[in-house]
Amino acid sequence: MSNTLRNRYRADLREMEFQLFEMAKIDELFVPGGFENWNKETSLAVLEQTRQFAYEVSGPLNGYADELGCQLADSPEGKRVVTPKGFKEAWDKLFELGLTNIAVDAEYGGLEGPHALQVVVEEMLTGANTSFNMYAGLTFGAAEMLAAFGTPTQKSTFLGNMLGGKWAGTMCLTEPNAGSDVGAATTKAVKQADGRYKLYGTKIYISGGDNDLTENIVHMVLARIEGAPAGTKGLSLFIVPRVRINADGTLGKFNDVTLGGIEHKMGIRASATCVLNFGESDDCYGELMGGVANEGIKQMFRMMNTARLAVGIQGLALASNAYLAALSYAKDRKQGPSIENFKDANAPKVAIIQHPDIRRSLLEMKAKVEGIRSIAVLIAAHQDRAHFYQGKDDEKAAFHQGQVELLVPIVKAYGSDQAFRVAEIAVQVHGGAGYIKDYGVEQDLRDSKIFSIYEGTNHIQSMDLVARKLGQRGGMNLMALAGEIQAFVEEHKDDATLGGAVATLGASVEAINGAVMRFMGWSGEGKLGLVSMFANRFLELMSELVVGYLLLKGAAIAKAALAGGSTEKAFYEGKIHSAVWFARNILPTTGARAEVMAQEDDSALTISDEAFASA
Amino acid sequence: MSNTLRNRYRADLREMEFQLFEMAKIDELFVPGGFENWNKETSLAVLEQTRQFAYEVSGPLNGYADELGCQLADSPEGKRVVTPKGFKEAWDKLFELGLTNIAVDAEYGGLEGPHALQVVVEEMLTGANTSFNMYAGLTFGAAEMLAAFGTPTQKSTFLGNMLGGKWAGTMCLTEPNAGSDVGAATTKAVKQADGRYKLYGTKIYISGGDNDLTENIVHMVLARIEGAPAGTKGLSLFIVPRVRINADGTLGKFNDVTLGGIEHKMGIRASATCVLNFGESDDCYGELMGGVANEGIKQMFRMMNTARLAVGIQGLALASNAYLAALSYAKDRKQGPSIENFKDANAPKVAIIQHPDIRRSLLEMKAKVEGIRSIAVLIAAHQDRAHFYQGKDDEKAAFHQGQVELLVPIVKAYGSDQAFRVAEIAVQVHGGAGYIKDYGVEQDLRDSKIFSIYEGTNHIQSMDLVARKLGQRGGMNLMALAGEIQAFVEEHKDDATLGGAVATLGASVEAINGAVMRFMGWSGEGKLGLVSMFANRFLELMSELVVGYLLLKGAAIAKAALAGGSTEKAFYEGKIHSAVWFARNILPTTGARAEVMAQEDDSALTISDEAFASA
Repeated sequence: MSNTLRNRYRADLREMEFQLFEMAKIDELFVPGGFENWNKETSLAVLEQTRQFAYEVSGPLNGYADELGCQLADSPEGKRVVTPKGFKEAWDKLFELGLTNIAVDAEYGGLEGPHALQVVVEEMLTGANTSFNMYAGLTFGAAEMLAAFGTPTQKSTFLGNMLGGKWAGTMCLTEPNAGSDVGAATTKAVKQADGRYKLYGTKIYISGGDNDLTENIVHMVLARIEGAPAGTKGLSLFIVPRVRINADGTLGKFNDVTLGGIEHKMGIRASATCVLNFGESDDCYGELMGGVANEGIKQMFRMMNTARLAVGIQGLALASNAYLAALSYAKDRKQGPSIENFKDANAPKVAIIQHPDIRRSLLEMKAKVEGIRSIAVLIAAHQDRAHFYQGKDDEKAAFHQGQVELLVPIVKAYGSDQAFRVAEIAVQVHGGAGYIKDYGVEQDLRDSKIFSIYEGTNHIQSMDLVARKLGQRGGMNLMALAGEIQAFVEEHKDDATLGGAVATLGASVEAINGAVMRFMGWSGEGKLGLVSMFANRFLELMSELVVGYLLLKGAAIAKAALAGGSTEKAFYEGKIHSAVWFARNILPTTGARAEVMAQEDDSALTISDEAFASA
Repeated sequence: MSNTLRNRYRADLREMEFQLFEMAKIDELFVPGGFENWNKETSLAVLEQTRQFAYEVSGPLNGYADELGCQLADSPEGKRVVTPKGFKEAWDKLFELGLTNIAVDAEYGGLEGPHALQVVVEEMLTGANTSFNMYAGLTFGAAEMLAAFGTPTQKSTFLGNMLGGKWAGTMCLTEPNAGSDVGAATTKAVKQADGRYKLYGTKIYISGGDNDLTENIVHMVLARIEGAPAGTKGLSLFIVPRVRINADGTLGKFNDVTLGGIEHKMGIRASATCVLNFGESDDCYGELMGGVANEGIKQMFRMMNTARLAVGIQGLALASNAYLAALSYAKDRKQGPSIENFKDANAPKVAIIQHPDIRRSLLEMKAKVEGIRSIAVLIAAHQDRAHFYQGKDDEKAAFHQGQVELLVPIVKAYGSDQAFRVAEIAVQVHGGAGYIKDYGVEQDLRDSKIFSIYEGTNHIQSMDLVARKLGQRGGMNLMALAGEIQAFVEEHKDDATLGGAVATLGASVEAINGAVMRFMGWSGEGKLGLVSMFANRFLELMSELVVGYLLLKGAAIAKAALAGGSTEKAFYEGKIHSAVWFARNILPTTGARAEVMAQEDDSALTISDEAFASA
């Protein structure tokens, strides 16, 4: 099978437009004091431009880059990463187009546009080639840290070069013994007479830790200043360029950041996952982010929403690509007669999309993809509104920011778990063809598996949700969302088309409210084991509630559009089908799955370690 | 990380012994007329011997073989497959030990032992190295066909050489346009004056279609004799050796079976998945299996139970290996303080097995692995009993054979789906380490994905269950199983330890009975779309019922053993914990998930093809 099939990335712009304009209504912010230089046409033009880049530039490299992975080459400064051929040209093109800087200030060459628009742009960039886009994503994340916390000098030194793609960036948190327990980091920083710090330590799993796309790489390194407290409180954030910067901004001497090796991974094989050694020759210098010590974790935490939303978008991207690949295959592939003729050996063969189980599989994928996209765009639109109302209407700003906080663990964990699930279904729809490399869906499956692990495992997300977010602002964030859903239920429960589905949503929100009370009870009684054991389950149920709500909201909008005489019959009817399918097949089980928690099953806590197995 | 970690296969012999002797009670058949040369000691000795082979011979090749995959080399007869170094030596050792021939007649060098014992032997062989064991598994399957349907001459020509590992075997069904729709096969057979047939056609996805382990390969080829009817009814089975056999049994001329290529796959990368061309030079001869025409599908169908059970065992094998790897990792890997001390940066770090969500993950894996093993061993024990009672007590024989028929689609589909799920959890328990090649669980995940696809997709299994098996023998197979579960519920519902869990099982069996009525109703009303759309869901629910039952039955046995003063406290308590966890966390949702079907959701049927997406 030719590589053309394999590398075919697909994006559904009409659906993206729906999420941006009909659901999130981002054009409400195309006003003075908001995104005043934007309109719907410019937004859609950016989507078109991104799709073209994804289809023609980065997408076609995806399968080839997966085969090849990253290579190592010798250099005077030790081993260096060699990315697959074509990445450098794609990188330059990406920054020439400015597609990563939609929501960036004009001062740094950005377009001062909506985060919500950047979300769907990122979806296409990462969907077309996740590995390639990791380098840009990490660079953007590091630049955001600098923009938020850097001193004026730090910003002027680094920011323009990073946002322009001249220098890359990384986040260096993990160490061999400090993964989820980031506070166990032992990388050391020693203050020098001139105010700089010397760094010593090893970081692992550093995405984009080395590359051959840029002339420099700026590492954001969590380290402990000599004498600082144990745990996360003693961690500081250091800016550690691979090559030092001279006073005039030109590149200086190698900064003793050496590549210890790259990992051989299940997926995202063209994203270099590096072991980095800092200060092996006692010559690695870093500067304190913002000039403040022991603030590293706080700084990281404040950027976490963007980083975790980005992983949710990665999930969305591969889920969507896998779905559209399966849909295309199902329309093309003929196999067997229709179910009505299953006994007739001479009946005409039909495309497999005609088979009920394939349609069920496709509609499940469609509903989940659209649901995750709704959440991702909604979060970014809340970010945009929080920013818009800042200083104008603090209560509104706090509401929107609160929704961001509440929904981020959901988009990260549900988005990543379901990406894997959707890709699995896509493989199954392809049958044997799904298991071979030619069609690309097995790559979606492999690539997507890391999303549930990095940027805080999905259990960490679920603990963030149940132990922090549910009670944030005295529970107001949660109550606002639940109230919004309940109001929607009230408004639509008698709808002739959607009423039954909406009633199911109403029962789900009740079940979730009950589950929340249960978690509060456990927390109050100090039953932390139960909180932890059921946190993942709760996150999944709450995610499904949100997805169910957003799909039904979309269906109500679609119904109104059809009633208003829209000619896009297939598109809007498709929205109704997704919502109804989800409400009939997923939501009715919320109650029973929540009720399981009432049993307070502690068998996993009380079993002895020895009883797990005899091998 | 060194390869030693990666290649570490693990098997829990005590648990296997429990399934064989305490659950399936295979020693009841160690009697005259049964397996009269066997006893518990010889059985356990075979398990020990197999484990040693798995740990020392085939297991250590697994990671390396995955990296390398199969290669191609030139030969006078076109391209040939080169398997990874070490496979040939392992192959010879495997047949020297006779581990594949436990249930084979002595006449062919077999040990005349229980199928149930062969199941756990196969579990270890495939768990240690799935790719390697595919060659042996396909050879055995082809030999079984010959043993069942071959003429005396065919048996004497092929069987000894195949069962002895001198010649390999394959099953050649799939063609580019005949996958799930096997009746669409176009490979042609033309009768010659001498009674032989010439074959013409291309088969794809042929596991072990070529290899360098044996001097010959005997292909079982489904083909259509010129003039035979369309569909499955016109298919005949041909024995097509790669190299012809002379009258004296020595090897003759090349038989024009050429290798068209091998697939590049997500997993089982050292199993050669071949395109085979038959008769490209008009010189490929085959003989009719058993000398009968148009019986190919019937012959295949009669062997299908063994083949599908084998895939279930593959799922079991990788699920078990992934579970035991995760358990080992969780005991070794230290990360963070215990949940009680989570705020104390100076608290001692604990092994991650102490964290509640890790324990929950491990117990979920344990329960599923033990449940699938119970089903697999139970099926084989039913096979053994069906054989034992044949001609002695036909009613008993029919009962046991009926249970085999009913449970086979369950072990194949649930075993394969859950293998993937368990491997996914194992990756998650490993965190970032799970995503890199060093620990091997990502290989389990990749290798296991094919199990839901080949040997009849899992949807085909679910249709086999709902459309054939539920109504088989007038529903007696199903009623017998449901009756057995209900009797168990009656007996144990007041048990102090297990009563609550057993009551949940009772509710599940009611829910399943209701669902069966629903399917019968739909079938009666010709609502085939609903049957097909909910078949997978039903299979999953019924599988969970069976798993829940068998785990609780095991727990009751364990409880009795503990009450009887057994010193194996940890082992037996572990059985109780698995069962209780499953009954409290999975079974309570059966009712709600079955009730979904009552909504008769047809949104996937009524959505138009165009409404799925605009891309």
